[in-house]
Amino acid sequence: MSELDRVMLDPQAVETPVGYVDLGRARNNAAKVVEYANVHGLRWRPHVKTHKSLTIARLQIEAGASGLTVATLREAEVMSSVTDDLLLAYPPVGPNKLERLFALPHRVDLKVALDSVDVLAELGGASVATGRELGVLVEQDMGMGRVGLPSPEAVVELAQIAAETPGIRFRGVMFYPGHIRMSEPEQDAHLEEVSGMVADTLHALLAAGLEPEIVSGGSTPTIWRSHEVEGLTEIRPGSCIFYDREGLDVGVADVDDLAYTVLATVVSTAVPGRAVVDAGSKALAKESRGGGGGFGVLLDRPDILVASVSEEHGVLDVSESDWVPRIGERVRIIPNHVCVSVNLQDHLLTIDGGAHSLLSLEGRGRGPWQP
Amino acid sequence: MSELDRVMLDPQAVETPVGYVDLGRARNNAAKVVEYANVHGLRWRPHVKTHKSLTIARLQIEAGASGLTVATLREAEVMSSVTDDLLLAYPPVGPNKLERLFALPHRVDLKVALDSVDVLAELGGASVATGRELGVLVEQDMGMGRVGLPSPEAVVELAQIAAETPGIRFRGVMFYPGHIRMSEPEQDAHLEEVSGMVADTLHALLAAGLEPEIVSGGSTPTIWRSHEVEGLTEIRPGSCIFYDREGLDVGVADVDDLAYTVLATVVSTAVPGRAVVDAGSKALAKESRGGGGGFGVLLDRPDILVASVSEEHGVLDVSESDWVPRIGERVRIIPNHVCVSVNLQDHLLTIDGGAHSLLSLEGRGRGPWQP
Repeated sequence: MSELDRVMLDPQAVETPVGYVDLGRARNNAAKVVEYANVHGLRWRPHVKTHKSLTIARLQIEAGASGLTVATLREAEVMSSVTDDLLLAYPPVGPNKLERLFALPHRVDLKVALDSVDVLAELGGASVATGRELGVLVEQDMGMGRVGLPSPEAVVELAQIAAETPGIRFRGVMFYPGHIRMSEPEQDAHLEEVSGMVADTLHALLAAGLEPEIVSGGSTPTIWRSHEVEGLTEIRPGSCIFYDREGLDVGVADVDDLAYTVLATVVSTAVPGRAVVDAGSKALAKESRGGGGGFGVLLDRPDILVASVSEEHGVLDVSESDWVPRIGERVRIIPNHVCVSVNLQDHLLTIDGGAHSLLSLEGRGRGPWQP
Repeated sequence: MSELDRVMLDPQAVETPVGYVDLGRARNNAAKVVEYANVHGLRWRPHVKTHKSLTIARLQIEAGASGLTVATLREAEVMSSVTDDLLLAYPPVGPNKLERLFALPHRVDLKVALDSVDVLAELGGASVATGRELGVLVEQDMGMGRVGLPSPEAVVELAQIAAETPGIRFRGVMFYPGHIRMSEPEQDAHLEEVSGMVADTLHALLAAGLEPEIVSGGSTPTIWRSHEVEGLTEIRPGSCIFYDREGLDVGVADVDDLAYTVLATVVSTAVPGRAVVDAGSKALAKESRGGGGGFGVLLDRPDILVASVSEEHGVLDVSESDWVPRIGERVRIIPNHVCVSVNLQDHLLTIDGGAHSLLSLEGRGRGPWQP
């Protein structure tokens, strides 16, 4: 009997640890974002890094997403079978990546975000060589200090060069505003600052005769306040399809919106006050956080933390609980950060209208995709 | 042209990020452990979780490892093609895992470590049902508080039940002593404590007529002091095949012993004082640490930290350096924790006597292995 047959007959028979997705909730989450975007005249171009799955990407497109955002060439290859509107929100550097980029189906309206004349020049050369025009978004840093140009002037300068580069079409600007988990007053101040920077950049671009067709922003931590940044045409939040402990903490989602948990099994209760499950850093990841600490929390017992993890062990602190875990018992864990947990799974177990299935993660890994 | 052909012709053409292994150094590392073990009358049963690779496992066996340690059924299936002497250092819970365990080739001398009568009973039932005798090591906690029984008395009690369980053979005890990164005086005290606990347990077992054939301990952080714990018959250190930033910090390896780095490419230099490489939390992992902080350090510029990571971005702090990174430039990063970084790779790029190749990671993932 195949693993899928087993799951269909008895989800308890599936091996743990495994990521577990409620497809109905994922659909609801997608519908809510599309509704929000529609109300505010925005398009939603979800980042697929969260799920890396064709099925989930189709669900997003069916819900009304206008296109998709990808970070890797693998994701681009996979997702070009679902949409004709792709943004590679990552500078492609090196001959292999350029080759894969320009080998994407010609029907795909391809945009690349970048922040350097170096990458732009390489893309321009490849565009001319292949005869395929490429759209470019210039990326601006909104204070995260990761990628992106530091000022409106620098954005305009690169946009100008893009507009003049044969084979390249300047399509607009991109930024990421969701980098800091902030209190509400801090977030107010941050969004005001971002709004000011965006306004300055748009003003400077227009003054230079470079009207941006796309102004791409948004993030899950700021999702419901995206409209406060004037001039946006689209938002890219990704983890809002599933949410995670961070999303609950920031307050953009409720526990009833959670569409992803990690199904795990209790394997040891030998140490007093603790119970060990088979989801460790190779299933949940080991991304620490502030607040309550730990590496996850039980869905059905929110007072129980995954207090520590090693590779195949998640240690639950049950010292303050009246729960007496039994070996073999199943638990569902809300990971701190859903994207990195999904990336550690071979596949996901899904439930949809009571039926279980296995979901492939076609965009995982880095090599070329063969459908 | 396949990716392998490209690599053979020009390693610069390989796509980044990718784990990069110096096989000569891995061989030297294995030889050093075997030499140490031989001098002290110990066997080395390396944990394969670090590499998950048939090629590296063969290298360890050829160097003189006596068998292998695995944590997952997938690792067990893969590694049973390399050795006849396997320890599953993890309690197998659930019908699928039991089925896979008992389906391992019968030539394999199989031992399972456990700390509960529940798992023991399940294993006993399956042993009798399949007619295959199974060896059991009883696990003791040495203060880590993860898995393992808390006292010699509890170990003896479970060992006694194991010895009396049809289908089960009591083979010995197991523990993990390497859980705390300590100063030398702290490590002195810790090893003295572990030695005392092991002595007490061995004494209690002998008094009960339960002579352990295997006393399995050791860890990379305590590797060169394993002999200070009297009564050990074998050690299981795994990351000593490659080492990592933790190994350098603890002082058990020198930078010349490092056999694993992550090859990455500079993709952005737009933010002053920083440079971004394409190895983020999906290539290095995001395991924070004390000391210098960060998520890795450059091999060739040890003053440059990977100060922060997001999924596909590693942010290098170059503010205090005279290095001016160029887009497209390659760097090699020493990750904090090698095991979780290897687990994030599709394959590894190896160098051996000047020749490059790609190395499969057959033990990655959780599903059944088809050779």
